[in-house]
Amino acid sequence: MYKLVLIRHGESQWNLENRFTGWHDVDLTDTGVAQATTAGQLMKEAGFEFDLAYTSVLLRAIKTLNIALDEMGQHYIPVERHWRLNERHYGALTGLNKAETAEKHGEEQVKIWRRSFDVPPPAVEMDSEHFPGHDRRYSQIDPDILPRGESLKLTIDRVLPFWHDQIRPAIQAGKRIIIAAHGNSLRALVKYLDGMSDDEVLNLNIPTGVPLVYELDENMKPISKEYLGDADSVKAMMDAVAKQGSKQ
Amino acid sequence: MYKLVLIRHGESQWNLENRFTGWHDVDLTDTGVAQATTAGQLMKEAGFEFDLAYTSVLLRAIKTLNIALDEMGQHYIPVERHWRLNERHYGALTGLNKAETAEKHGEEQVKIWRRSFDVPPPAVEMDSEHFPGHDRRYSQIDPDILPRGESLKLTIDRVLPFWHDQIRPAIQAGKRIIIAAHGNSLRALVKYLDGMSDDEVLNLNIPTGVPLVYELDENMKPISKEYLGDADSVKAMMDAVAKQGSKQ
Repeated sequence: MYKLVLIRHGESQWNLENRFTGWHDVDLTDTGVAQATTAGQLMKEAGFEFDLAYTSVLLRAIKTLNIALDEMGQHYIPVERHWRLNERHYGALTGLNKAETAEKHGEEQVKIWRRSFDVPPPAVEMDSEHFPGHDRRYSQIDPDILPRGESLKLTIDRVLPFWHDQIRPAIQAGKRIIIAAHGNSLRALVKYLDGMSDDEVLNLNIPTGVPLVYELDENMKPISKEYLGDADSVKAMMDAVAKQGSKQ
Repeated sequence: MYKLVLIRHGESQWNLENRFTGWHDVDLTDTGVAQATTAGQLMKEAGFEFDLAYTSVLLRAIKTLNIALDEMGQHYIPVERHWRLNERHYGALTGLNKAETAEKHGEEQVKIWRRSFDVPPPAVEMDSEHFPGHDRRYSQIDPDILPRGESLKLTIDRVLPFWHDQIRPAIQAGKRIIIAAHGNSLRALVKYLDGMSDDEVLNLNIPTGVPLVYELDENMKPISKEYLGDADSVKAMMDAVAKQGSKQ
């Protein structure tokens, strides 16, 4: 039997400002730092030991991981950063807040982008600062496969190769793993692990900064799944995320 | 021509308390955090871009690196932690302060341990908390090669294989590298790069938290070497380290 822990980054500056963030690289707020610290304390108290950590190439996830591992005294484990664990790319919506988006594209259209499984947002232009091809961290990736705007479906299609090629073999080799990532890249993993339908995953809201612990059998099928921490506060955080429209 | 940056971690709690630290895993002080932040700012202003970072498995070096990279907005580069970049292991002296050590072993003997090239401190007992074999981060290393007390010579012998096997090939493959480590593991690298004699390296004092920039030719021979930042403050920090007796 294997254990796997998933954690969504703590509150970021643009969560707070209610703007579409995606691949834009914002920092944690003080609340986000506190959430990461609490997550580390919870895992420490529960006696977790990790052999390997995965995260995205975005600051809010990396920092959440660093803070939690420091708190656990497990700063010394290997950490692998990978762009496939990045948040959903919000295309031309990146940087807009809810009100700006509704004004520009209409309430109905915004609802579709937020709530549909496979309708991508308008693509970001190649000359926009939000096109990843201008960022040196993606310079070794074929620009043709860099996202310019992803639906949840496209996000999942981009995340899962990393699960199959890297994470799953490491778990099967006996590594105890933590993955610090984002609302939608973690939805991709949970959908896959739990065998959710395309409709079911739309109702999945992963709270920020709360460790989600899976026990997996030898075929990587979940035996159990639970959030660490006080049930009421976890529930409150999930409701808060659902209200936000899960647009991170 | 290649560039390489070395940085010694900022002030740690046991630097401050003037205790032999070695492999004991202490945190940075607030001053140490500020030093790491300043180092990051200096490198950012100087326009450094890194492709890869190496550090030890000790918190004070890892944290110095994380803080500096965050400050530069280069948190996304791969970071490899390795025990061979750890500080000199101070054996049975670990945890003692200057006064306690002099009382226990005599002033003359202490001077020899501090100032000699190849006299190791008394070995730590296998049942001591300071024997690395009890720490899970070293569990995949043959206990027979884990240090129980190192001279500067033994430290150098342990560090250099990592230079030859990992760092040098990465530099030659074109990676722009930063190494965040410790007073004595960095002395090992500088002695090797500069071709210093065993006597010369005893007078080498590397200041904490100041980026040391090497330009190397295609054969890894130094073309130039300089500390980033204001020359007077760098000089003051080197003098401070020399006075401390370089016993970190």
